[in-house]
Amino acid sequence: MKNTKPLNDVIVLDLTRVLAGPYCTMILADLGAEVIKVERPDVGDDSRAFGPFINGKSAYFISLNRGKKSMVLNLKMEKDLKVFKELIKKVDVLVENFRPGTMDRLGLGYEDLKVINPRLIYAASSGFGHSGPYSKKAAYDMIVQAAGGMMSITGQPGGPPVRVGASIGDITAGLFTAIGINAALYQRQQTGVGQKIDVAMLDAQVAILENAIARYIVTKEPPKPLGTRHPSITPFEAFKAADEWVIIAVGNDALWARFCESVRREELIEDPDFATNAKRTENYSKLKPIMDEIIAQRTAAEWIRDLDKVGIPVGPINTVDKLFTDPQVKARQMLVEVDDSVAGRVITAGNPIKMSSFADESSRKAAPELGEHTEEIVRRFLGQGE
Amino acid sequence: MKNTKPLNDVIVLDLTRVLAGPYCTMILADLGAEVIKVERPDVGDDSRAFGPFINGKSAYFISLNRGKKSMVLNLKMEKDLKVFKELIKKVDVLVENFRPGTMDRLGLGYEDLKVINPRLIYAASSGFGHSGPYSKKAAYDMIVQAAGGMMSITGQPGGPPVRVGASIGDITAGLFTAIGINAALYQRQQTGVGQKIDVAMLDAQVAILENAIARYIVTKEPPKPLGTRHPSITPFEAFKAADEWVIIAVGNDALWARFCESVRREELIEDPDFATNAKRTENYSKLKPIMDEIIAQRTAAEWIRDLDKVGIPVGPINTVDKLFTDPQVKARQMLVEVDDSVAGRVITAGNPIKMSSFADESSRKAAPELGEHTEEIVRRFLGQGE
Repeated sequence: MKNTKPLNDVIVLDLTRVLAGPYCTMILADLGAEVIKVERPDVGDDSRAFGPFINGKSAYFISLNRGKKSMVLNLKMEKDLKVFKELIKKVDVLVENFRPGTMDRLGLGYEDLKVINPRLIYAASSGFGHSGPYSKKAAYDMIVQAAGGMMSITGQPGGPPVRVGASIGDITAGLFTAIGINAALYQRQQTGVGQKIDVAMLDAQVAILENAIARYIVTKEPPKPLGTRHPSITPFEAFKAADEWVIIAVGNDALWARFCESVRREELIEDPDFATNAKRTENYSKLKPIMDEIIAQRTAAEWIRDLDKVGIPVGPINTVDKLFTDPQVKARQMLVEVDDSVAGRVITAGNPIKMSSFADESSRKAAPELGEHTEEIVRRFLGQGE
Repeated sequence: MKNTKPLNDVIVLDLTRVLAGPYCTMILADLGAEVIKVERPDVGDDSRAFGPFINGKSAYFISLNRGKKSMVLNLKMEKDLKVFKELIKKVDVLVENFRPGTMDRLGLGYEDLKVINPRLIYAASSGFGHSGPYSKKAAYDMIVQAAGGMMSITGQPGGPPVRVGASIGDITAGLFTAIGINAALYQRQQTGVGQKIDVAMLDAQVAILENAIARYIVTKEPPKPLGTRHPSITPFEAFKAADEWVIIAVGNDALWARFCESVRREELIEDPDFATNAKRTENYSKLKPIMDEIIAQRTAAEWIRDLDKVGIPVGPINTVDKLFTDPQVKARQMLVEVDDSVAGRVITAGNPIKMSSFADESSRKAAPELGEHTEEIVRRFLGQGE
């Protein structure tokens, strides 16, 4: 079974652009699916125009579209619409992330396409979903990070708003969509028919709030940002070492005792204000200056070495460059090379879903040029030259 | 096909605890799988002890374990180990999130279990993965958010570190694991055998950095936090309105013209410093005080009403309580009721993967009491009383 990817026999027609949709289809490509981007003429996927650029090609586009094919179709032209509908008969999955209503107006909604191909799995990713009063609103990642509650719990206490530095509004929607597509593929093998999947970026944000909802319904107080503090475990945050920040996670009372011994502050173990996690959390503002003073005495590297030795979870705050020299990231092949015909060798993030059915590649096929595979696709699927 | 969930026929044995694993198996339960938590005696899943509590039951546990069953087994006892191995013969999926090596020591690693059941899909979620030099390190969400680069791009410029307010280190690992499990189920229908899935929290963090890696390899500068600024589109951030913050996303030059007209500042449209997105981004520090002054003149609600009218993406920064009155969240059934025998009616986040093969329920089965289903499971699968 070596090197047989799970989605080896799956063909995906990919109308998506920018991030949420392409992230989803990139996962499908990583798992072996043949992903055919259907792009409009001249411009193609909007992200082809997003910097930064390498030899004129968008590094952003490259990082999200490796391993996919590209054909150009103008869905506003009758001729190309016909080609598209012929392709629909022969593919397993369609993914789109247009504003809801767009595909219906083109006569390409799920209700239209399932007539052409009842086995089609139609996956729609959008800002607010294919139902509800906001369905047709424009959405950007920042809008949904704000609307969905995530920004309200991220940042410094009392500080100005902060967004998550990566577009998790788009990305988590892409992940949920990928789950739905795989589940639908599994279900189709039993039912023989496809279905529609409808994932909203806002819904995904609500789904990943973790305990913020639970805390609100119990305390009736909307949770607020906590910097790097853990809401209920202390000490458990970023501390300023002599040179830079370091994360120290004293997860329970046993670790607290070990920490205090390790820094020769045994009197803190039994101090009634700090003897249990509950007490340490209650007396956070009393403990914080004590911890700050202790941690300031060694460098981050020294703390990582010393606390790791006694089994206390500790780690650095890595800037992105540090990932390139991290031995674990390397061993896990999480930064892979793509050989791009225009940009040359480009490094992008790898696939984190390691599966024993295939050996992980340390390199990846490049992101396609606009329309690079139009002829090949038309010939293969429609049996004609063009 | 109505109300036939995709994973209706799938049985999952769930050894996971706290967040990454349970989040994954909760998605599987939402998609119809029978998820059987195997918990150790007395304590069970650690998160049963995490506050806040409702009538003594953990709201955190409830929010992550709805719809699952619970049996108690002590895997250090020969008798229970035998029961576990008998169950393995009859289930489709095993999910565990122990420190790598733990299952091997118990004689329950993938290589051991695949002999008992070659069709078994063995999904392991861990901090650093089942390979590599850090494999056996303890991981918490905060540690991987820091090690994986996410914290380095989140926060205010020059400010102290900030973690993402929800544990996306755990949660995204859970999402990638769910994708892998579904893909493996699909593949198994063709190959007849299972496989091992190995997802690391650190890998997942690297995978979701979006354009931070691309920016680094092109500019050679590690990206830094930007507050709520978009790295390449301006104006596109949170602004302080008269009363509270509001997100305004002027995504392109056409929207800029519309914005300037809308606020009667037409001279800004053609101002050479601000005429294009590239110029506006270049002259950010010149434009910021102008924008701040304009936005301070109306309330957030007024901006949302006025800019929405002219099609400029705009939205609130919602605290979690606001979700409970949001009409879109309601229409999408993203806050659902769980009827818990101990805690009563509890509200939790719903399932964001809307699939046409089943009607979304507006209510969910409760999270199980510890060992609530031990007898039922043993009787059903082993055909014996206990």
